Amino acid sequence: MKIDAPREYVVDNLKYALNPSSIAVVGASRYDAKVGYKVIEGLSRCGYKGKIYPVNPRADKVHGLPAYKTLLDIPEPVDLVFVAVPAFLVKMVLEQAVAKKAKMAVIATSAFKEIGRGELQDSLTNYCRKHKLPLIGPNLVGMGSPYLNFNCGFIPYLPIPGPVAMISQSGANLLAALGTSKTQNFGMSFFIGLGNKADVDFAEFIVYGKNDPYTKCIATYIEGLDSPEAYIKACRETVPEKPVVALKVGGSKIGVKAAFAHTASENVGTDDAYYDDIFEKAGAIRVTTWQEFLDVALALGQQPPLKGDNVVMITNGGGSGLLACDHFERIGMPLRELKDISFMLSLKIRAYMPMFGSPLNPVDISGTASPVQYKGALHQAMRDSSVDGVLCSICPTAVTNVPAVVDIAIEMYETYKYLGKPFIMECQGGAECHEAIMKLRAHGIPAYPTAEQSVNAMVGLRKYGKILEKLG
Amino acid sequence: MKIDAPREYVVDNLKYALNPSSIAVVGASRYDAKVGYKVIEGLSRCGYKGKIYPVNPRADKVHGLPAYKTLLDIPEPVDLVFVAVPAFLVKMVLEQAVAKKAKMAVIATSAFKEIGRGELQDSLTNYCRKHKLPLIGPNLVGMGSPYLNFNCGFIPYLPIPGPVAMISQSGANLLAALGTSKTQNFGMSFFIGLGNKADVDFAEFIVYGKNDPYTKCIATYIEGLDSPEAYIKACRETVPEKPVVALKVGGSKIGVKAAFAHTASENVGTDDAYYDDIFEKAGAIRVTTWQEFLDVALALGQQPPLKGDNVVMITNGGGSGLLACDHFERIGMPLRELKDISFMLSLKIRAYMPMFGSPLNPVDISGTASPVQYKGALHQAMRDSSVDGVLCSICPTAVTNVPAVVDIAIEMYETYKYLGKPFIMECQGGAECHEAIMKLRAHGIPAYPTAEQSVNAMVGLRKYGKILEKLG
Repeated sequence: MKIDAPREYVVDNLKYALNPSSIAVVGASRYDAKVGYKVIEGLSRCGYKGKIYPVNPRADKVHGLPAYKTLLDIPEPVDLVFVAVPAFLVKMVLEQAVAKKAKMAVIATSAFKEIGRGELQDSLTNYCRKHKLPLIGPNLVGMGSPYLNFNCGFIPYLPIPGPVAMISQSGANLLAALGTSKTQNFGMSFFIGLGNKADVDFAEFIVYGKNDPYTKCIATYIEGLDSPEAYIKACRETVPEKPVVALKVGGSKIGVKAAFAHTASENVGTDDAYYDDIFEKAGAIRVTTWQEFLDVALALGQQPPLKGDNVVMITNGGGSGLLACDHFERIGMPLRELKDISFMLSLKIRAYMPMFGSPLNPVDISGTASPVQYKGALHQAMRDSSVDGVLCSICPTAVTNVPAVVDIAIEMYETYKYLGKPFIMECQGGAECHEAIMKLRAHGIPAYPTAEQSVNAMVGLRKYGKILEKLG
Repeated sequence: MKIDAPREYVVDNLKYALNPSSIAVVGASRYDAKVGYKVIEGLSRCGYKGKIYPVNPRADKVHGLPAYKTLLDIPEPVDLVFVAVPAFLVKMVLEQAVAKKAKMAVIATSAFKEIGRGELQDSLTNYCRKHKLPLIGPNLVGMGSPYLNFNCGFIPYLPIPGPVAMISQSGANLLAALGTSKTQNFGMSFFIGLGNKADVDFAEFIVYGKNDPYTKCIATYIEGLDSPEAYIKACRETVPEKPVVALKVGGSKIGVKAAFAHTASENVGTDDAYYDDIFEKAGAIRVTTWQEFLDVALALGQQPPLKGDNVVMITNGGGSGLLACDHFERIGMPLRELKDISFMLSLKIRAYMPMFGSPLNPVDISGTASPVQYKGALHQAMRDSSVDGVLCSICPTAVTNVPAVVDIAIEMYETYKYLGKPFIMECQGGAECHEAIMKLRAHGIPAYPTAEQSVNAMVGLRKYGKILEKLG
């Protein structure tokens, strides 16, 4: 439900959503396929150190813990109330949570506004707002943080720790991101499913992300904004310090209906231009596809903004260079020729390629490129004062030593990191490239399996650079 | 160099490029980092059963095989001459190949037209055409086929066997595809690097692909077409039987120069619309990014064309459904509501979802969906006569049994395969989804990790359906 700006009492209490000392799980179940069991199992398995109080009127124990009949029977204070009971019981649980002076309510239960029960949902919101009990959800998957060993919801595993905070209305997409985190070294600081966002909204978690020391980039997956003004305010407050990425779905004709059916998100009367305008005002970086969402968020989490258009691409694959330069132009940031960026560099870089290489930009050091040639070319490009950012690509030919080139890339990155220029890698191929990507990401270098993904990432860094310029 | 149509003597001889009984490697090297060594090593390692004749005037043996001073010293006939000597020696080798009555010449050597030596390259072409010795290259990586255990070039490994023939001007991109083949279960029938295509052109390999029993889809990566008429003719001959996918690069301002520097491809005076027109005349399916190239080619290799617009999407993730329906509309094939496709189906499918599911289309059977619910929904959708194709998505929530759903999907696909409707899957997440994708692909079901990729694949199948309709 609409808010005008991020509310202070909500932002203050969000620490109880991600770092509570005690949790009551209302609707705790003895059956291991049930949400009310999975939550407790997930908390324990991932190393939650606080107290867990299962609430179940018909059980003595759940997952080995003593169960309570109601919230009010718990003898100690409770920070977070996690609710997984049928929709018609939720109101009663919230009343008990208020009586118990809980700090935060999270409602996993579905079947509210998204199936037409808008009034029921609104009554919960109004009740919670009146009593200043922030409510997250309903209809959500959960939340967590790998830094806090906190996994609260029906979530199979934590992501690896890293720079991206993900705020998502979709549970499934959030879970997909957590899976990708492990298999692709996509590091996250915290994650939260907002579901129907009856009360707590994007704006408040964005401000929380701004204050969170682990978060370097905030990624928002949006099915509909009830409170565009609050989103804009939260972003404008955050963006000078940390970039915000926005993926908005539900804009297509059928998507408008699907977004309502999914998270009760209202999209009637809005269109892509409407959201373009919001994101522009907010200074958020809009992306189009799920892959781009992950790729751009990682780059912004790991690298500084790109302060100018002079990107140099170094590759041992002419084809990868072509895919990249076409894509740079297609998405509005054409590469410039190396001789026009730095004539000296275009001469010097010749030393690191065979006769049939090309210093054009993409700089094609050719399929025969050795680690020494990569080192020389990277060294020259990174230190040149006319170069704003470097994109380096490895294609494993029969003579390419991929691990050695990866080590060189890391060495050169570390050497010139102080200059504050973005460095991105593309490793296009099979198993050895996947390993290369994993290692590079672990060293803070965003790396991708295709040319177009790495270009999207670099252009995302430029967009952030331009947003910061505009802010002065 | 330009040809007007695929030449019969060339097409006939291409079997010696991919299935020769004997190969001479001119420029065979004793040093294991050299191309002239890698070729022989690769042939042996991958199980080539024919004869290999290393040619090296200064060696007695290469890789354990007796070496010959020149081609003419080889006592037996030679089908394929693989040339990896410096550019200025190539003409002499070709003269010997003609004298030796070789069936096919492949020139790996670089530094011809792409660095300004157009005359030298043209003289080779003219010589070979005069003597009807087809020449592949120069400036290429090699070729092979997993069905024939044939790996000829500087290629680290063979792809897994499968339906896609890949004809690529870029060696690095081709190698990347081979790597992806193993890690993503992307099956290939044969592959060929064309390089500068001084003589043998796309057209001839397309016709070869049409005749090749393992090939179900022909994927062409193009940096420039010297012979658009021949490409169109070859495609028009092939497309009624097998689809052709086209990725054209080098269209950007800097790409025009980069494509020339890479494979001497001429793009001056052409633009995207020029190539749109060629591909439309050819009946080839144009794609934009490398990922789309792989994704669409695999779908066309594994599935029948989509004969109408009535696609039903079944998902347990509302978010994945939203990404998909927005993308369907974005790329010009909006989903229709299920009730408008088949009112009965929209009622029946309700039985396989909870109250908060949605039969809209995407059909959201919700995050709690069991394998039985997937089975029911798939069964209803696939057998409905109004449905032209089915897209099914799995998002691993804490209660999703991914392997069981995969088995159900395979069972339903096998059951209804006879109806000739495309079936595509999306498995969005981490390690278990990667395994799911590998298994589904091994069973002939194109599966992808994101909604947008699976939509691109489905739309590719529709494009082929429309091309076939147009051909009557």
